[in-house]
Amino acid sequence: MRAFGSDTRLPTVTLVLDLLRERRAVSRVELAEATGLTRATMTNAVRKLIALGFVHEVGTARSRRGTPRRLLELQPDACHMVGLQFDRFRGVGVIVDLAGGIAVRRELPVVGERGPDEVVPELAAAVDEMIGASAVAREDIRGIGLATYGPQDRDAGVLLTPQPTPAWQEFPIAAALAEATGLPVAIENDATAAGIGAKHWGASPSNFAVVYMSGGIGGGLIIDGHPYRGAASNGLELGHISVDPSGPVCGCGNRGCLDNVASPVAISSLARRTPLAARLGLGADPLEAFSLIARAAADGDTEAAELIDASVQNLAAAMVTLVNLFDVGSVVLAGNAFTETGDRYRDAAQDVLDRSVFMRHVHGVNVELAGDVAHTAAVGAAMVVLRNLLESPNVGGRSGPGR
Amino acid sequence: MRAFGSDTRLPTVTLVLDLLRERRAVSRVELAEATGLTRATMTNAVRKLIALGFVHEVGTARSRRGTPRRLLELQPDACHMVGLQFDRFRGVGVIVDLAGGIAVRRELPVVGERGPDEVVPELAAAVDEMIGASAVAREDIRGIGLATYGPQDRDAGVLLTPQPTPAWQEFPIAAALAEATGLPVAIENDATAAGIGAKHWGASPSNFAVVYMSGGIGGGLIIDGHPYRGAASNGLELGHISVDPSGPVCGCGNRGCLDNVASPVAISSLARRTPLAARLGLGADPLEAFSLIARAAADGDTEAAELIDASVQNLAAAMVTLVNLFDVGSVVLAGNAFTETGDRYRDAAQDVLDRSVFMRHVHGVNVELAGDVAHTAAVGAAMVVLRNLLESPNVGGRSGPGR
Repeated sequence: MRAFGSDTRLPTVTLVLDLLRERRAVSRVELAEATGLTRATMTNAVRKLIALGFVHEVGTARSRRGTPRRLLELQPDACHMVGLQFDRFRGVGVIVDLAGGIAVRRELPVVGERGPDEVVPELAAAVDEMIGASAVAREDIRGIGLATYGPQDRDAGVLLTPQPTPAWQEFPIAAALAEATGLPVAIENDATAAGIGAKHWGASPSNFAVVYMSGGIGGGLIIDGHPYRGAASNGLELGHISVDPSGPVCGCGNRGCLDNVASPVAISSLARRTPLAARLGLGADPLEAFSLIARAAADGDTEAAELIDASVQNLAAAMVTLVNLFDVGSVVLAGNAFTETGDRYRDAAQDVLDRSVFMRHVHGVNVELAGDVAHTAAVGAAMVVLRNLLESPNVGGRSGPGR
Repeated sequence: MRAFGSDTRLPTVTLVLDLLRERRAVSRVELAEATGLTRATMTNAVRKLIALGFVHEVGTARSRRGTPRRLLELQPDACHMVGLQFDRFRGVGVIVDLAGGIAVRRELPVVGERGPDEVVPELAAAVDEMIGASAVAREDIRGIGLATYGPQDRDAGVLLTPQPTPAWQEFPIAAALAEATGLPVAIENDATAAGIGAKHWGASPSNFAVVYMSGGIGGGLIIDGHPYRGAASNGLELGHISVDPSGPVCGCGNRGCLDNVASPVAISSLARRTPLAARLGLGADPLEAFSLIARAAADGDTEAAELIDASVQNLAAAMVTLVNLFDVGSVVLAGNAFTETGDRYRDAAQDVLDRSVFMRHVHGVNVELAGDVAHTAAVGAAMVVLRNLLESPNVGGRSGPGR
């Protein structure tokens, strides 16, 4: 049976690494208690992590009964992964260690309207430069995680959309980048990657929804620490739920899509038809224009504030739908579009959710900003490489049945 | 760790029962292959099911290699469960055997605006009558599953809403009915129960969304055969997602909720303000009125058709949201409101989804009616009793880690 909704059977080793990342020095007994796994399973998992060099013993602590317990600690530099996030408008790259620490961070060249033949060599060159700038030997880099837009076929490493140019449709981005860099490449939905990244920064609970905003809007859901995937591994098409039944038909076939009334692409396009265009000197780049509009709104420009607030209210309305359907207690905002405006979106959405969520009398819903909104997805993509490595049949023990 | 989004670790015994229900005579080797579990795990699970009397051997078949394999078969009458579904407007009860066969089915007294002090004794009397009418000895009934509206606290067996009267708020319905009948009682969200019921009728795939419509509208999601629950075990509040941002504020705090423009309660209330009230002789019962309106629409009454079509279109719009967020390939319609109108809703929703779902170029989405829309939730509730029985620590082996 193929797991569908979420990668339900988290390998024990991944679970243990997550715990070691959150706490500092932990004993096997504490790990067994925290996970609900048997001590035998835990001992086995820890043995494998020690063999990989990912975990080492750092002395002993006395238990309540006085028996000494050996404490375990992560070896952060035992493993490094590259994480990239790109879409048409922005891209960033990171090199991340086992503990989620960022060794290098870079902006990537903008894709714009260019095809993969130009973009892939640039990404490969950026990876080379990042590895060169880090203190990490190339052979110690375990692979590249690439967070990008959907729809995509994760297993095949292929994009399933003709965006931004027809040449990207069914382009084998993972294989092409692997060939150009000599490193294994895994692709991931950007909103889902942001969820994994937020989780790996330790700030988020195990269950939360993600609202991801770059030029457009996407959604993600983390259940018990695992991404919810759905039938085609494409997370939540939050940007294409309707927030206005009488709105215009979207390219996706639906009407009044959130993307068309709330995204930076939509807001900057609306602004260009107003005096704001000249007043703020709005250029072609929607994220740069969105930043200028957001800053003007913060400085008291009424026209700019109206546009931003319309986006905020539409996004908040979609978040109510998201929360009413998934019944989560937490929504994390990530993506570079929240760099300037995160607080404004967070506060307004919190206010709307406090008033409008069906289950608010049973449990509250917190809106939070991811730790570093512009890099969360790239870090999550890097962590996907680690997860894949640990889930490969030769490493660690599965906590669930075999397949 | 508490499982959140779905009961991810399905006990092996439940998995085996599901497979035996779908196929007829199966060998242990085939079961191991179909589940991906090891032969040792499968042998262990089958031993337990044989010890319970749920499964027996029915001869041998030759494998491809010529080795004889003993075939296993369900013993349908080894176990019976009561399933009830009730809300303010309608209630039905069933006695179901291990194979999902319905031994008895009954309408339950309508709750209306009455409190639990009147309703619980009536439910208990109905259960007594149903058991008496069946060929099943009372001691062979394993318990009662009760599907009803939310919010509810499943673990506590308590309703968390003052609907239909304040006396129901935090009323311990499970404990009260258990005391009145002497049988264990489990409660379940009605839309989720319908999902479990649809699954147990074997018609549905392992992954699908449920749209449940009685007086109001609810939603459910089955992932890999398990209910998605969310933070508070209340499935999907589909009736309270907005389909009209400029619509009136709903009692739930949100605006333009689906329930207020598409449910039988809403449609019958709208109809009562038109000449239809007199023409069709609409009474106070919203589901009866909804049936009359639906039949008139089918017979060509334009006014009635307009009301039904508005409901259909709003529900279809909400289904696009549901599918775009959960990325399912199948939506099952269940609930008594679809008894008359199921085909109309299914066909129209299919048409809208075919045009508007984001992922339609990657995979199709099928809209289906549950086998017996009025009894699906009650059958699912009965199956919850069986799942609880098999998941109790003394029975069967978990296919996942211990807790």
